[in-house]
Amino acid sequence: MTKKILVLIPVKDRHKLRLEETAPNGTFTYASPQTVTEEMAAESHIIIGNIPPKLLRTSEKLELLQLNSSGADAYIKEGILAPGTMLASATGAYGKAVSEHMLAMLLSLQKKLHLYRDAQNREEWADEGEVVSITDSRILILGLGDIGRSFAALTKTLGAYVIGMKRRPGAAPACVHELLPAEELEQVLPTVDAVVSFLPNTPETKHLFDRRRLSLMKPSAILLNGGRGNSVDPDALYDALSSGALYAAGLDVTDPEPLPPGHRLWSLPNVYITPHVAGKYHLPETLDRIVEIACSNLSSHLEGKPLKNLIDLTTGYCK
Amino acid sequence: MTKKILVLIPVKDRHKLRLEETAPNGTFTYASPQTVTEEMAAESHIIIGNIPPKLLRTSEKLELLQLNSSGADAYIKEGILAPGTMLASATGAYGKAVSEHMLAMLLSLQKKLHLYRDAQNREEWADEGEVVSITDSRILILGLGDIGRSFAALTKTLGAYVIGMKRRPGAAPACVHELLPAEELEQVLPTVDAVVSFLPNTPETKHLFDRRRLSLMKPSAILLNGGRGNSVDPDALYDALSSGALYAAGLDVTDPEPLPPGHRLWSLPNVYITPHVAGKYHLPETLDRIVEIACSNLSSHLEGKPLKNLIDLTTGYCK
Repeated sequence: MTKKILVLIPVKDRHKLRLEETAPNGTFTYASPQTVTEEMAAESHIIIGNIPPKLLRTSEKLELLQLNSSGADAYIKEGILAPGTMLASATGAYGKAVSEHMLAMLLSLQKKLHLYRDAQNREEWADEGEVVSITDSRILILGLGDIGRSFAALTKTLGAYVIGMKRRPGAAPACVHELLPAEELEQVLPTVDAVVSFLPNTPETKHLFDRRRLSLMKPSAILLNGGRGNSVDPDALYDALSSGALYAAGLDVTDPEPLPPGHRLWSLPNVYITPHVAGKYHLPETLDRIVEIACSNLSSHLEGKPLKNLIDLTTGYCK
Repeated sequence: MTKKILVLIPVKDRHKLRLEETAPNGTFTYASPQTVTEEMAAESHIIIGNIPPKLLRTSEKLELLQLNSSGADAYIKEGILAPGTMLASATGAYGKAVSEHMLAMLLSLQKKLHLYRDAQNREEWADEGEVVSITDSRILILGLGDIGRSFAALTKTLGAYVIGMKRRPGAAPACVHELLPAEELEQVLPTVDAVVSFLPNTPETKHLFDRRRLSLMKPSAILLNGGRGNSVDPDALYDALSSGALYAAGLDVTDPEPLPPGHRLWSLPNVYITPHVAGKYHLPETLDRIVEIACSNLSSHLEGKPLKNLIDLTTGYCK
């Protein structure tokens, strides 16, 4: 049977060639999340790219939704996907882009570049005083998937002491010095200089960083969030940062998102905010990697083989 | 003979103990560059720390001036030091602090964090588009002393291709992929994604980056200066950055310095300026390292052994 394949990622010619070679009997339609319609979705067997979830209501033929994101939270809610539709993430595509972005944020905050930028905009040659070195930093990384492991490798190679944390810890991978189970979060928080979250949006992670857990961190510590915004309670974070209970935060994701004009987090000098741009397609290599994951899963699906990055619809994590 | 030793660096108790153990027969005076007088300088045999040069006019007894800086340009001019006075720098103390600061600048510029900070201050959730990865970057490092080598090691370990440049190249050290002689600057400039200068202030380096050499760089390239401000012509740099002929610059040093309010470099969005703070004592380890260098040279001098970091008064470089 000819499969109808709907591609919603901004492919270049070389990517189209790769996809069409992978499914030579497929019928390809190229569109974008902005131009796609419910009718196009309804007749597709395979969709590659993050389609607006509401357009999936009548997609009974859909066998596989291959996302271009590593987060899948918008698609695991009841009633979005028909029973039997497989959902796969693009885990593996974003490690490099997101980890480098978050490293730039961490080093900037350690060297006070955010404050120097503000002074520059006031045309002030003003010394902001002591800084810290990444070699003296104990870093806790929450979420040790592709992105977390990439970030761990970068900070470890620069000389930090790196602690990974997973729900189900096994042997520590080479990118960390230690691997701890999630239950030990509260014991380890007071001992680290930076906490970096790459956690997805799940019921368990909502406001994980609440008032109490933020109060366990060192006053000199940095909190970074490169996962999903709602793992940090924004009111508790505001209070910790504005009172000096926490040195700084670096957020590529926020709650709510986008952060609206007038939100009080915008104007805190010791928070660094970027508008959920660490990933996307901003590093050209990311799109190449997404296409490779899509081709691999497309090929496996057509041949009846097991897919990679399949999402467990009950937990939101990879199976 | 009892040596009179004047210490002008902000030593802590543990540093005093180290110095006084090193010269048990010495007479120590502790002051600061702000409080020191010409009389105190005139009776000293050894001075540790960057004394204002004009206070050295009557220092005929001075045997050794051990600076706390790696640059020595203010002390090599005719008439500052009496003949026979040895001048030693603190090369080796600043590698870690300065290289980490300049790395933070490089990554920030690659990930557009400077533009995101400006958008944050306008409370705008605004996407700045494509970024680059350090793993795709060819980086040229000018000046391969302690600071240049430290920076080379950091960027090489993160995956950049690193080219070092020295006046007198020999075998390439492990921290670079290639080592080129200074004569090849103009051939290599069009091929690199970032140029990082750690050059001292010497007659040869003044406005090395003039209009012509800046025009040889890629429009997508980044120029970083962590050495001395006058190796870059500020007018030529302004024109290159404002016309889009050069993507961005990161300057911890400027010409003039301090950069006065109203100087047009302040307001260029694609220049990142920090007020000569990469070194100083901002990383506490830097002061420890300066004290160790001073103790080593103090001990060698008292025992009549060769000193390290001696400055050649004719070139301004280490002998």
